[in-house]
Amino acid sequence: MPAMVLVDIDRRKPGPIYRQICDNIRALVDKGTLSAGYRLPPTRTLARAAGVDRSTVCRAYEELWALGYTESRPGSYTTVRIRTAIASKPDKPSRPALSWAARSTRPARRVYRDAVRLSAKHALSDGDDVVRFTSLAADHDLCPADQFRSCAREVLAEMGKDILDYGDPAGYRPLREAIAHRLATHGVSVAADEILMTNGAQQGLELVAKMLTRAGSPVAIESPTYGLALPLFRFYGLDLKQIPMRADGLDLKVLEAVLAKRRPAFLYTIPNFHNPTGITTSQVHRERVLALCEARRVPIVEDGFEEEMKYFGRAVLPIKSMDRNGMVIYLGTFSKIVFPGLRLGWVAADRDCIGRLLALARFGNLSNSNLGQVAMHRFYAKGYYEKHVRRIHRAYRKRMQTMIREIRRHFPVGDVEWTEPSGGYTLWVCCKGLKMPEGEFMRGLARHGVLVSPGSFYFARPQRGIYFRLSCVNLKEAEIEVGIRRLGSAIIELKGQ
Amino acid sequence: MPAMVLVDIDRRKPGPIYRQICDNIRALVDKGTLSAGYRLPPTRTLARAAGVDRSTVCRAYEELWALGYTESRPGSYTTVRIRTAIASKPDKPSRPALSWAARSTRPARRVYRDAVRLSAKHALSDGDDVVRFTSLAADHDLCPADQFRSCAREVLAEMGKDILDYGDPAGYRPLREAIAHRLATHGVSVAADEILMTNGAQQGLELVAKMLTRAGSPVAIESPTYGLALPLFRFYGLDLKQIPMRADGLDLKVLEAVLAKRRPAFLYTIPNFHNPTGITTSQVHRERVLALCEARRVPIVEDGFEEEMKYFGRAVLPIKSMDRNGMVIYLGTFSKIVFPGLRLGWVAADRDCIGRLLALARFGNLSNSNLGQVAMHRFYAKGYYEKHVRRIHRAYRKRMQTMIREIRRHFPVGDVEWTEPSGGYTLWVCCKGLKMPEGEFMRGLARHGVLVSPGSFYFARPQRGIYFRLSCVNLKEAEIEVGIRRLGSAIIELKGQ
Repeated sequence: MPAMVLVDIDRRKPGPIYRQICDNIRALVDKGTLSAGYRLPPTRTLARAAGVDRSTVCRAYEELWALGYTESRPGSYTTVRIRTAIASKPDKPSRPALSWAARSTRPARRVYRDAVRLSAKHALSDGDDVVRFTSLAADHDLCPADQFRSCAREVLAEMGKDILDYGDPAGYRPLREAIAHRLATHGVSVAADEILMTNGAQQGLELVAKMLTRAGSPVAIESPTYGLALPLFRFYGLDLKQIPMRADGLDLKVLEAVLAKRRPAFLYTIPNFHNPTGITTSQVHRERVLALCEARRVPIVEDGFEEEMKYFGRAVLPIKSMDRNGMVIYLGTFSKIVFPGLRLGWVAADRDCIGRLLALARFGNLSNSNLGQVAMHRFYAKGYYEKHVRRIHRAYRKRMQTMIREIRRHFPVGDVEWTEPSGGYTLWVCCKGLKMPEGEFMRGLARHGVLVSPGSFYFARPQRGIYFRLSCVNLKEAEIEVGIRRLGSAIIELKGQ
Repeated sequence: MPAMVLVDIDRRKPGPIYRQICDNIRALVDKGTLSAGYRLPPTRTLARAAGVDRSTVCRAYEELWALGYTESRPGSYTTVRIRTAIASKPDKPSRPALSWAARSTRPARRVYRDAVRLSAKHALSDGDDVVRFTSLAADHDLCPADQFRSCAREVLAEMGKDILDYGDPAGYRPLREAIAHRLATHGVSVAADEILMTNGAQQGLELVAKMLTRAGSPVAIESPTYGLALPLFRFYGLDLKQIPMRADGLDLKVLEAVLAKRRPAFLYTIPNFHNPTGITTSQVHRERVLALCEARRVPIVEDGFEEEMKYFGRAVLPIKSMDRNGMVIYLGTFSKIVFPGLRLGWVAADRDCIGRLLALARFGNLSNSNLGQVAMHRFYAKGYYEKHVRRIHRAYRKRMQTMIREIRRHFPVGDVEWTEPSGGYTLWVCCKGLKMPEGEFMRGLARHGVLVSPGSFYFARPQRGIYFRLSCVNLKEAEIEVGIRRLGSAIIELKGQ
């Protein structure tokens, strides 16, 4: 007599009656008391038996149907149906029914391969006594976390609820104003409306690629260049025209030749503390680059990721400061100075260009996180930013001096060349004499307890010779001394093999 | 005798001597005392005159050259050169030298046009006495800002500096664990490794499009569908196969027919409180969708953006809960429940699929902001989230009831159809009898002091008839009453024209 069981209604229980009826029937199905095909009593019958309104029973039956417990056809009885079992851990197959590799597009597969290669590089050595010249992440010992905490606490206390709502898609306006103010000290004259906040400079670079390129578009890049720009450009299928880096910056003759052919969608350049080489170009060089690009109407994407990091001598003004024709798209970021985890980068460009990048940004992620922007603005307004920049200049001047001094002391004369940057965190080494695969070289270094960033990471195409980048972001002077000494011995040993 | 002026050195001043020399010469050039072509004294002469080491003068000359003040050729004199003026506001041309519209790719131009159209929609009426049924942004009056503040303060005080450093590119692990825990209450069994944090659900959708599609790829979508998915899909040049929405969800027969032709890269579906219609499908319908897609090995992208928002009756389990073959890519977000400004969304999918999406995410923006993730985790762990969900259920149950009750009362019988959702924030209206351009209809509503989201925003291709979405996210019951009354009169008036 299952129909009797169904009407076990307790009117003192909270919640609607129809749900009790529904729950009763569900429990019976789940236990197996009512099996597939069992015909439920007509709503009228059950309503009478339970002493409830017929509409209550109808509601319960609808709910059962919605939950997949019953089949119901117009003008017919409602019957219990076989439910698809809910997925649960032990039943899961170890492999999905389709291959995500096969379904991924070619560019997506390439990006994935690059990511796997990158992880493998980082996994090379995880011993304790290893000096790592690889990281560009902030040094925790220099992080002004206390000041940031006080700023975040202040803005949380003062701000309204809008801090937690969708923000201005272009970014928190007072922060954009602060950035405009800061850029003015670098000779760049832009208004807050000419700035778009991005999730790090990386998002800015992607937005530019999205706006100005299609698969096959030629784009002029420095060679070597920022390692994580390459997979991005490859994903978009760009035709990368490499301009070799010379001691004074990208080769102007090659640039001229590249511009004279099929017009590139843009030139991507890093004039300050170029990543990876650490080279800073002179103003003369920047003027030439601008003049060449202006003549051919080629937009310049200027990556100013370490604009603030000149600590030897005087800063050269960005190309953007000379941009009278609105052709320079400037990428900036706070990540290389403070708090990379806040993901605060920006694009400064002509207003129309910003409007177009903003449209692309909105359909990609609507807006960026507010809280970090508001707290960062307070951090800037209180003068903590300026103070912090001065502090890290002192720290990194010493680290870079140490790195260069130790290299001069320990690297074998004549066979090894390196750059001597006037700021930033990285320098670039070329071992001319070494003829071996890069992987072998890196393993050789790892055996000596030292890790560097392999040159292949920064070139769009394989190069002859051994190159690598050294970063002193996360190393104290004593560690730099040990690391460079090991590097010197390793190179000498590998040369002798 | 300019050479005499150059050697005005004050040894008591801080900073290196070379910089004083450099500054002196720069000032003379800037003032015009030394004009272009002026030949600087040889380094030896100047060093003797100034009583400094020759290397100091060489350093100063190098600096001048780097700053663009001089020309210098090997074996020749150093001369003052003409500097390109620094860009300054008044000199700027009002238009850039190139057209960003012309340089933008076709998809980028389309996205920009969509953005302009969207802004125009929002600009339709900005009067004070307007009831806006348009917004899906959080209601500030329901925002648990105090609890969030206390959580943020706690984590700021307790956490190390790593909270401000680059985070785990996949997202803050404890938050991913909390999400896995929450998804389990919806019958979805995934591990933290099968979750990727994204900048809102929107970024998740873009990553999927990047991974699985190329220009021209067929993709099955519901019609109407989430308005901001359309410009995204259009940007990627997808061939949109529209499956019409029926009262019980997407039309299964049409889906079957679409799947039988060229295999779509994926099906994009919103089974709960479908945007814009508010329809929630039954479990039976979900099983059919899954079975059809499984048979053709077509991945399902399930947008669970309002998974938690069932407040009438019992929640139907997501398609992902039945996914035994790892074919469902589930998009989730906190934005429709709490704090959209934190931009916390996620993708839950098969591990290999997550790894591939992660690679794409990294090259797009490296990682997402940490701080909000850590604070949100605390908010969840303290039970505030659960409590907040219950609170908004109470609030929105009443608002939705009010909206439906007033519609029944004020809309003209027979000519207007609407959905009656069991949760979420939106319902969908179709005015069959009205034959007029949508813009005219919207202006008619604006004259009556009421704004709605126009149907064209949710369709990939123009439709006959007038459709619109009503959202009660930001409206109190009294406002809903006024708004629906106005809407009813407006429709009756427009019908009579």
